[in-house]
Amino acid sequence: MNDLQKKRHTFAHLLAAAVLKLYPDARPTIGPPTDNGFYYDFAFSTPITDADLKKIEKQMKKTINTWETMEVRVVSEEEARAQFKDNKYKTELIDGIVAADQEITFYTAGDFTDLCEGGHAAEPKKELDMKAFTLASLAGAYWRGDENNDQLTRIYGYAFNTKEELDAFMVMREEAKKRDHRKLGKELDLFTTSDVVGSGLPLLTEKGAVLRRVLERFIVDEEIKRGYKHVYTQDMAKVELYEKSGHYPYYKDSMYAPIDVDGERFMLRPMTCPHHFELFSSKPHSYRDLPLRYAEIAKLYRYEQSGELSGLMRVRSFNLADAHIFCADPEQAGSEISSALDLIDFVAEKFGLTMGEDYWYSLSLGDRTDDKKYFKDEAAWDTAEDILRNVLEKRDCHYVENEGEAAFYGPKIDIQMKNVLGKEDTAFTVQYDFVMPKRFDLKYKNASGEDQECVVVHRSSIGALERIIAFLIERYAGAFPFWLSPVQVKILPITSEIDDYAFEVKKELEKVGVRVDVDNDSETLGKRIRSAQKEKVPYMLVVGKEEVENKTVTVRARDNQEQIKLTIDEFISNYCTNLI
Amino acid sequence: MNDLQKKRHTFAHLLAAAVLKLYPDARPTIGPPTDNGFYYDFAFSTPITDADLKKIEKQMKKTINTWETMEVRVVSEEEARAQFKDNKYKTELIDGIVAADQEITFYTAGDFTDLCEGGHAAEPKKELDMKAFTLASLAGAYWRGDENNDQLTRIYGYAFNTKEELDAFMVMREEAKKRDHRKLGKELDLFTTSDVVGSGLPLLTEKGAVLRRVLERFIVDEEIKRGYKHVYTQDMAKVELYEKSGHYPYYKDSMYAPIDVDGERFMLRPMTCPHHFELFSSKPHSYRDLPLRYAEIAKLYRYEQSGELSGLMRVRSFNLADAHIFCADPEQAGSEISSALDLIDFVAEKFGLTMGEDYWYSLSLGDRTDDKKYFKDEAAWDTAEDILRNVLEKRDCHYVENEGEAAFYGPKIDIQMKNVLGKEDTAFTVQYDFVMPKRFDLKYKNASGEDQECVVVHRSSIGALERIIAFLIERYAGAFPFWLSPVQVKILPITSEIDDYAFEVKKELEKVGVRVDVDNDSETLGKRIRSAQKEKVPYMLVVGKEEVENKTVTVRARDNQEQIKLTIDEFISNYCTNLI
Repeated sequence: MNDLQKKRHTFAHLLAAAVLKLYPDARPTIGPPTDNGFYYDFAFSTPITDADLKKIEKQMKKTINTWETMEVRVVSEEEARAQFKDNKYKTELIDGIVAADQEITFYTAGDFTDLCEGGHAAEPKKELDMKAFTLASLAGAYWRGDENNDQLTRIYGYAFNTKEELDAFMVMREEAKKRDHRKLGKELDLFTTSDVVGSGLPLLTEKGAVLRRVLERFIVDEEIKRGYKHVYTQDMAKVELYEKSGHYPYYKDSMYAPIDVDGERFMLRPMTCPHHFELFSSKPHSYRDLPLRYAEIAKLYRYEQSGELSGLMRVRSFNLADAHIFCADPEQAGSEISSALDLIDFVAEKFGLTMGEDYWYSLSLGDRTDDKKYFKDEAAWDTAEDILRNVLEKRDCHYVENEGEAAFYGPKIDIQMKNVLGKEDTAFTVQYDFVMPKRFDLKYKNASGEDQECVVVHRSSIGALERIIAFLIERYAGAFPFWLSPVQVKILPITSEIDDYAFEVKKELEKVGVRVDVDNDSETLGKRIRSAQKEKVPYMLVVGKEEVENKTVTVRARDNQEQIKLTIDEFISNYCTNLI
Repeated sequence: MNDLQKKRHTFAHLLAAAVLKLYPDARPTIGPPTDNGFYYDFAFSTPITDADLKKIEKQMKKTINTWETMEVRVVSEEEARAQFKDNKYKTELIDGIVAADQEITFYTAGDFTDLCEGGHAAEPKKELDMKAFTLASLAGAYWRGDENNDQLTRIYGYAFNTKEELDAFMVMREEAKKRDHRKLGKELDLFTTSDVVGSGLPLLTEKGAVLRRVLERFIVDEEIKRGYKHVYTQDMAKVELYEKSGHYPYYKDSMYAPIDVDGERFMLRPMTCPHHFELFSSKPHSYRDLPLRYAEIAKLYRYEQSGELSGLMRVRSFNLADAHIFCADPEQAGSEISSALDLIDFVAEKFGLTMGEDYWYSLSLGDRTDDKKYFKDEAAWDTAEDILRNVLEKRDCHYVENEGEAAFYGPKIDIQMKNVLGKEDTAFTVQYDFVMPKRFDLKYKNASGEDQECVVVHRSSIGALERIIAFLIERYAGAFPFWLSPVQVKILPITSEIDDYAFEVKKELEKVGVRVDVDNDSETLGKRIRSAQKEKVPYMLVVGKEEVENKTVTVRARDNQEQIKLTIDEFISNYCTNLI
């Protein structure tokens, strides 16, 4: 635990101390540090509200004055049980420590003692900046995260080294809130949910559907240009398929229950690989066919706990831009992995992402000592890891190495991205696979006419469409670049006499594929401009008598007061370029 | 039963008589007429083979000479049971007739007597043209179609009024066999199946995927041009959604078993309607928003018995070009239905289909006396049926009327198509719905600010993509028009020195979006031309030294010996037009 995490952990204790002072019959349970602060879960006898947080904060600021030091003491089982005899949660924790034959330690600051494993500021009063923390919110939580257990009240806090850091975080958080794709998704009418459809199964409205369609066609066309063969396989298959691939034991818990059809068990697919392998195996292949790149916008189903679901980011069904490249040998796999990274860099550039800042690569290696998690084949792991490292070394790219993060069938390159809150996450991966070709008997005839095993590269180019849409909504704060905008141009006729001309202009723009609306509502022009700005439409074309006479439009960008008069053709050739 | 069907039924009896003559211990069961002949199911003591069919045919031609008349006689239960005491199948049929309290009739010709309901040629020897029939094939069949019963041997025959009709049918059948989309799908490498994926779940290869992608983009773009809003909803939802729509009891048997998720039951959707209704209900609507046309390429799941499955034509999961149009009132619904038919005619023309010949409309009306099958609302049915009839009357189209074929929520127009065997089938429908708007409370604010119920039009434009692909494979016998062809152009360099130029030409064509391959295999040019013809590639470009020097290509169409020399630009502008 680093110093900041130790401080945050100490803040959690301080919170518990303050709560006990104010609510003596509350029962503290556990309180760890988090990425930006801390939380503590309590069993309250009567519920508290957000309004109580200020009071608790005030008490924390009072209590800290008595916290000169944080003392640790190893105690006997008896002493521990006596101290927490009225707290069944702590008693249960003690049971666990005793069962595991570990030391029981108490941490005491001021008059507050907690059962704890440690990791604290040694001199809380001196080290904790009481202006660098704030209590943030209340939430429900289950004891030990299990919904069959008691429901507890979780108090979240933010804490940093300095007030400046806290302020900066709060500003970023405010900005992130504004950019939250769930909030913008509603405001911009991009997606919605339905109770009778179900959680984690969002519906894309006509505007959200434009985002998906444009992204899907963009990536499919780009992949075809780069030699991928796009195919369509099925979203469900017999359980046997996932048993054959060996995925079943690993994915069982995140797959939906089987569906019985004529006595056979079918499953919604959690991954595409075995489907592409079956397609590959449906005909013989020669070395001249390789590398063979099967790609698909594949609908996948993964079970996620309802508490994990979030907008388009964490869903129960998603569409992955997936591909499996059948290679003749490790060298060819290396060259294909390099090409896959070229495509990823190309896509990232299209979204204005900077390597090393917005995204980077992480080389995930196998932990060779773990035979259960990793397929045993030292030589194959050596070859594969060398190839991946070489590919990365040769590129102008940022990457880190991580041991023990590989897939069970080989090492991989994770594409790491940072979201608006600065949080890092694996967006998708490029994987080297020397195991599946054995399981699926993926072979080709080499130049000497002999059967030879393929190496398979699994890769995505853009990840899941739902997730990249969520990411882009937040990145652009809903103000999408022209090519992605659901509505690209809005035409605003000043009066109803101009309607005909407005629709004429619309027709001209539609001819070149522009997504354009006319807003001839009875509202004032000012109101209609504000409404188009709120919708974040890239360009408004205001048209009145003068425009009709000169066959022009007055162009106004969404983020700009400036107005420019242009002919329709000029507008098209200067503004409506880069349509995808 | 018409005269031809009576003759076919008589042929079935004649077949049974001949079989009993040759195989006295065979047990005849049932033998009805079919669309192009007849069959009879037998229990044989030892299996027969295709080679035996000639012998049986010969015996039929002998036996017919004794069949001057066909006599009918009502018999007692006792006589019937005595006659068939050694035939448990006929005995079971007698049980059924007795239980239903019906007359038992025997039909006798020559020395052959069968238990039968009738429908025969009165004078078989005179009426049956023994040159106008043939025994076609053997197949396995279960007694009463139930796989738990005994397996029987079915003998199929074709029979017509004249030899000319039979010959014409056999020619068409041969042609249909050649065009069978399952056969061509394999030969042209368009789709495949996998035992571990499952029956009725075909996989589209890279070439088949082109057909789907091109058709999908064609119809989506055309619909958007015509004011449809394409959306994406989910392929599964809670059972409640289908209960709410009232579909559940009607579709239960053709839906897959529910999937349990966190104690809730989810189902794979058998139809799109309730999903679009939920999307509509997610926000308020004004009369100014209507008509609102939600469209989607919707993946649907329907359970089909494994015996019913066939290639891409009958599958367990398909993608329907679906739409639901929310209309302000019946008049608007009428106008939208008319526009939907415009789109259907447009698409049909694109496929070269002729109204009245290849396709026509069928107006399906409700049977008002059937309260169980049809929603009770006389006035609404009257209005809806008038509107549909008016729409059809006003068009230059062929249509027929069918009572009792409507959906439970309103009348519809079926789009009937003829396949290569001349068989008529409903390809898809346009439906008028006044029931779902009540169930889903589909309302909008009318011009006076009051809530008013919508009328919904359900429609497809092209049907299921899988099915239309199967239809088009058979229609074009795999020789797709240029815009649909998986590979549009194949470049054949005469020698390997020309390879560079071949790939240069490829690049030029790819720039304008042509799907093009280079075949520089070591085979002779003649062999490569034949291979491209077999693949039914629309154009081959042969390039040699002369072409390199003059920057030209020698164009050869798939169905033509003629060769034309053109510059690359000339080829593009003359041959690569109409890319979609």
